[in-house]
Amino acid sequence: MRVVTLSIGDELLDGRGVDTHGAWFSRQLVLHGCEHVEHRVVSDDVNTIRDAIVQLLPDSDLLLLTGGLGPTLDDLTRDALALVLDVGLEEDPAARDALEARLSGSGRPLGAGNLRQIMRPVGTRFLSNDNGTAPGILAHHEGVSVVLLPGPPREMCAMFDVHVVPLLEGVQRERVTIRSYGLSEADAGERLGELARRDRQPLVCFKVSDSIVQADVLGDGAADVGERIKALWAPFAFGDDQDTLPEVVGRSLATRHADVAVSESCTGGLLGGALTGVSGSSEFFRGGLLTYSNALKSALLGIPEGLFETVGAVSREVALLMAMETARRLGTTYALSTTGIAGPGGGTPDKPVGTVWIGLCDTSGSQPVVVARCFRFSGDRAQVRDRTVKSALQMLRLRMMEDESTLLWEVES
Amino acid sequence: MRVVTLSIGDELLDGRGVDTHGAWFSRQLVLHGCEHVEHRVVSDDVNTIRDAIVQLLPDSDLLLLTGGLGPTLDDLTRDALALVLDVGLEEDPAARDALEARLSGSGRPLGAGNLRQIMRPVGTRFLSNDNGTAPGILAHHEGVSVVLLPGPPREMCAMFDVHVVPLLEGVQRERVTIRSYGLSEADAGERLGELARRDRQPLVCFKVSDSIVQADVLGDGAADVGERIKALWAPFAFGDDQDTLPEVVGRSLATRHADVAVSESCTGGLLGGALTGVSGSSEFFRGGLLTYSNALKSALLGIPEGLFETVGAVSREVALLMAMETARRLGTTYALSTTGIAGPGGGTPDKPVGTVWIGLCDTSGSQPVVVARCFRFSGDRAQVRDRTVKSALQMLRLRMMEDESTLLWEVES
Repeated sequence: MRVVTLSIGDELLDGRGVDTHGAWFSRQLVLHGCEHVEHRVVSDDVNTIRDAIVQLLPDSDLLLLTGGLGPTLDDLTRDALALVLDVGLEEDPAARDALEARLSGSGRPLGAGNLRQIMRPVGTRFLSNDNGTAPGILAHHEGVSVVLLPGPPREMCAMFDVHVVPLLEGVQRERVTIRSYGLSEADAGERLGELARRDRQPLVCFKVSDSIVQADVLGDGAADVGERIKALWAPFAFGDDQDTLPEVVGRSLATRHADVAVSESCTGGLLGGALTGVSGSSEFFRGGLLTYSNALKSALLGIPEGLFETVGAVSREVALLMAMETARRLGTTYALSTTGIAGPGGGTPDKPVGTVWIGLCDTSGSQPVVVARCFRFSGDRAQVRDRTVKSALQMLRLRMMEDESTLLWEVES
Repeated sequence: MRVVTLSIGDELLDGRGVDTHGAWFSRQLVLHGCEHVEHRVVSDDVNTIRDAIVQLLPDSDLLLLTGGLGPTLDDLTRDALALVLDVGLEEDPAARDALEARLSGSGRPLGAGNLRQIMRPVGTRFLSNDNGTAPGILAHHEGVSVVLLPGPPREMCAMFDVHVVPLLEGVQRERVTIRSYGLSEADAGERLGELARRDRQPLVCFKVSDSIVQADVLGDGAADVGERIKALWAPFAFGDDQDTLPEVVGRSLATRHADVAVSESCTGGLLGGALTGVSGSSEFFRGGLLTYSNALKSALLGIPEGLFETVGAVSREVALLMAMETARRLGTTYALSTTGIAGPGGGTPDKPVGTVWIGLCDTSGSQPVVVARCFRFSGDRAQVRDRTVKSALQMLRLRMMEDESTLLWEVES
């Protein structure tokens, strides 16, 4: 099945936005065994959209459009489709009912924009949208199915599963994803060896995104090759498919009936935020202390003020004490602490930007064990903080596995 | 100047790669005052590429192609251009010399692939590539400049600066962005009124991304219109251009020599994480308490346990006490608290998923003032938490402005 996709929106062409739909569609269509023939990005101009649809129809069995279905006057995709079909727009009675029901709960009145969103070209039908006010539209023209979906990724992706997948007539291919954190891209590639060859079956593609090194295995035998990659990437491979580090760590904790607390300086709450991003995190996460200022490190955790003078807040001693006191005062099985220099300011020759100490206290045994490890992360402020969170979570995961491997960016201290 | 771009490569359409050139071109072209009319992604098929060039020529003053200039047999962009120009390929003597000089140093012989790379359509000329073996190609056809660049970003971007920028004939355009939070897209659009018309000059485009409603004003007089939009969107418009809510709130606090602390339940650290995402946040952020469990709400903040039985942890009373005790115990000018049901579990008929109380304590006056407001956010767990963070920051911003406007998703309580 030949599928052509079209993203619509001025913001995708004037430097404000980035079109991510094209690549997302490619992955989904490959998964469903369809051929992604072409992707286009055009502006919110009704004639441009019309011309693109007319040009693309002969090349496709299914034409997928996204964007330009919002409530404002520059949302013109439905008008362009009406031009192609050579029909007018009409109000959809069921859509009006649904919209009124939806908005009545919020106490907001029906505006002119909302009224635009319940119009569709005569002879087409609406596709429900559970995450927004803009329904999609399905038309059939010259033997081609034409589907209009709203642009916001969350709405679009959910509607793709519900409304587009049933239209896809492809051959499913086996697919497995392995995700890892803490080894470099080069190291990950070398460990794969022959598996990374482009002419192999199943095909192994790997990529790095937000410091997560991921392998996608596609084709017959993907599951077996996935298991081999997990072994080659041990102990850094933490999960399959859409697993995240916080989820995997949370599951491990819950399985052991253990819990965790945090004390955060340079991450300022992001580690707690990551752990509580997991549904049901109250099972394993108790809480924590954001001791961003040195005064609060002393007041909330009892860190002796003299330490800030002698070894500094970014030090093994402070990371150790933070983790230990957090576990003791909050009464949890494990505690993680972070203290570092996220930048852009604050670096010194001894402790350049990116220097972070992560502490871990483990009270699961007969005696509490507390360790601290030093990292020198590359990247800007956001990356340093993100890598700190991921390294702390991987440290806890490895601790539960009794593995002492060194992580990427870790330095002798 | 109208510019059309085309990315070529099977890997961009089969789920392996992600086309980043489209967005990169958009930013560069806007910077140089050119109009990015359209971007396309097509596969390494000679007829497909030829057809795309033929279709795109009439719409452009400059046609930029990237990819398909490598040494392998599936690199067919130069062949497609020759078909469009209706000429053959010829070897470029200077390119042969340069390639021989380049490879002689490495000891590698001239391969068949290299020989393909020194061929160009008759009547065109080569563009030098300092970072790889594939030269670019420049052609003129039917009044349009056609530029072929290699696909690897490092080679492509460097060649863009050297060879494409001199061809750009654009007029820099004035540009302003206004960002707001707490009013709906429909409300924002209605407040704009006539300003949102597509035929206006300067042009106002608006979009919603992660609940931030943003207007981009482009063209002569953009600054003035930006000021008008700020007034129309008051008090929800919080900044220009790339301003974020945490930055704006941080600047306001720093200007007043005030500081803030947080106590977080449903957001679990994201509010502190957002505030400390700002460079130099130690000027206004002290720290906070992650009281995710009720036990820690009592232990760290002294919330009476009886309240959890009578009114529940997600209540006005608990939000008020959390904020008040945080300001008192951590000694800050302001304190923000969050307690809610982020979902997907935990909802009840009385307090459905998305119900969140946000507390705010203000000790800047002669008497501490503490308020709590109830929200019913739509969206999934991540969105409820993100909207909680943004609403808390906007509440604090409005408090400092002595404005009591109701925010989107706020409910009577």
